[in-house]
Amino acid sequence: MSADHLKIYAREYFLAAGECNAEGRMPLTLLTARIIECATCHANSLGIGYATLIKLDLAWVLSRVSIEIDSLPGINDTYIMNTWIESTNRLFSERCFTVTSPEGHVYVNARTTWAAISISTRRAANPGILGDVMFPTDPPYCPVVAAKRTPQLPDDADECLYTFRYCDIDFNRHVNTVRYIDLILDCWKLDWYDRHDIARFDIAFHQECHFGETVVVRTSTDEDGDTACELLRDGVRMVSSNIKWRNKE
Amino acid sequence: MSADHLKIYAREYFLAAGECNAEGRMPLTLLTARIIECATCHANSLGIGYATLIKLDLAWVLSRVSIEIDSLPGINDTYIMNTWIESTNRLFSERCFTVTSPEGHVYVNARTTWAAISISTRRAANPGILGDVMFPTDPPYCPVVAAKRTPQLPDDADECLYTFRYCDIDFNRHVNTVRYIDLILDCWKLDWYDRHDIARFDIAFHQECHFGETVVVRTSTDEDGDTACELLRDGVRMVSSNIKWRNKE
Repeated sequence: MSADHLKIYAREYFLAAGECNAEGRMPLTLLTARIIECATCHANSLGIGYATLIKLDLAWVLSRVSIEIDSLPGINDTYIMNTWIESTNRLFSERCFTVTSPEGHVYVNARTTWAAISISTRRAANPGILGDVMFPTDPPYCPVVAAKRTPQLPDDADECLYTFRYCDIDFNRHVNTVRYIDLILDCWKLDWYDRHDIARFDIAFHQECHFGETVVVRTSTDEDGDTACELLRDGVRMVSSNIKWRNKE
Repeated sequence: MSADHLKIYAREYFLAAGECNAEGRMPLTLLTARIIECATCHANSLGIGYATLIKLDLAWVLSRVSIEIDSLPGINDTYIMNTWIESTNRLFSERCFTVTSPEGHVYVNARTTWAAISISTRRAANPGILGDVMFPTDPPYCPVVAAKRTPQLPDDADECLYTFRYCDIDFNRHVNTVRYIDLILDCWKLDWYDRHDIARFDIAFHQECHFGETVVVRTSTDEDGDTACELLRDGVRMVSSNIKWRNKE
């Protein structure tokens, strides 16, 4: 149905100064927004996007994101995001990404997991029914291994409260995916980020939050310096995340 | 120095679903980010951007933004932002904007005021020394009149507190300009925005805020339904804003 050259999608971006974080680099929130944007554009171009799926009572839901970071684009850098679908089974579709410089330096590798749901029942549906239109015959290798489950956090984990407000809400009337990442990153102070980079970031979305709901953001860091995070609403895990830190050079 | 056709800068954008607000429209924060981005790119292309100005110990600082909104682009809409410099005097440069559809519908008109400062002294400098390289000979008409000063707010104005966190900070180690707009818009609930649109938004930046500082966000709405807002740090006005609301049809 689709020509093979369409099965790897590439898009070039320019990183404006106003988009950068305190280190003058691409924020993890913008990186995740670009991942969602490229996945959406690619699905549309393959004919498996919103417009097609709604006729089948289906929708894609982002379930997990794992990002391995070598370095990140800086102010006025051009970067290229590539994405392709690696596999699809009866429950999930795995979509991989790279972010590279125009000269081919690999900034980032990422792996995402998307579920198909029935719009009317909100239950899991089988994305396999969309057929094999979407796979490149010779896909690139994605070095990002599947995330390990975020462990239960100890009772004495660090905690802060947040109540979702107007600007946190997306067109589906859920909390915007990237706002969860803001909330997690905001658990550390500016000077922590002056001394540490994120080497790997995993996030899993379990349930949607809505306007006016309050969550507890909990974090706990183990002896190896790896952090486990969770957002709880009424004691139930809405979002969980693992962060692997690296000392800045 | 620059050809006249470079003196009006145009850039086309696509509004991805993930960028939209709860109404499925372009958020005011993204609109402001695009205004800053196009101003920056245009200044660079005219040879009056960061790279040139730093050699003259000068930098541009955004002082005021006034936006008049007819309507806003929606999900998957393409929009075009145009910008040009209308005038420059010994203190300020006035830069105007339109946002239009590809068919020419005018979504938005905007007027911005930029000060030049000496980087070493942080004091006002004269942007007039950059000469007249930047003016179109026959500039478009910008219908946005200058903002009126935000009045003093009454003692019983609505108030909420906010402490700036990691994700609020930009590469200059100041609070990101668009975060102030988030804080102002978040003073109203989701159902208010289901019944009201913003017809005009004015914001003035008086002083920079930093990581860990706490501000009071104060709002007061008069009998005509117009709102005055201010962000105070230790009782001093950092940011002020006026909002003119319009009932949704």
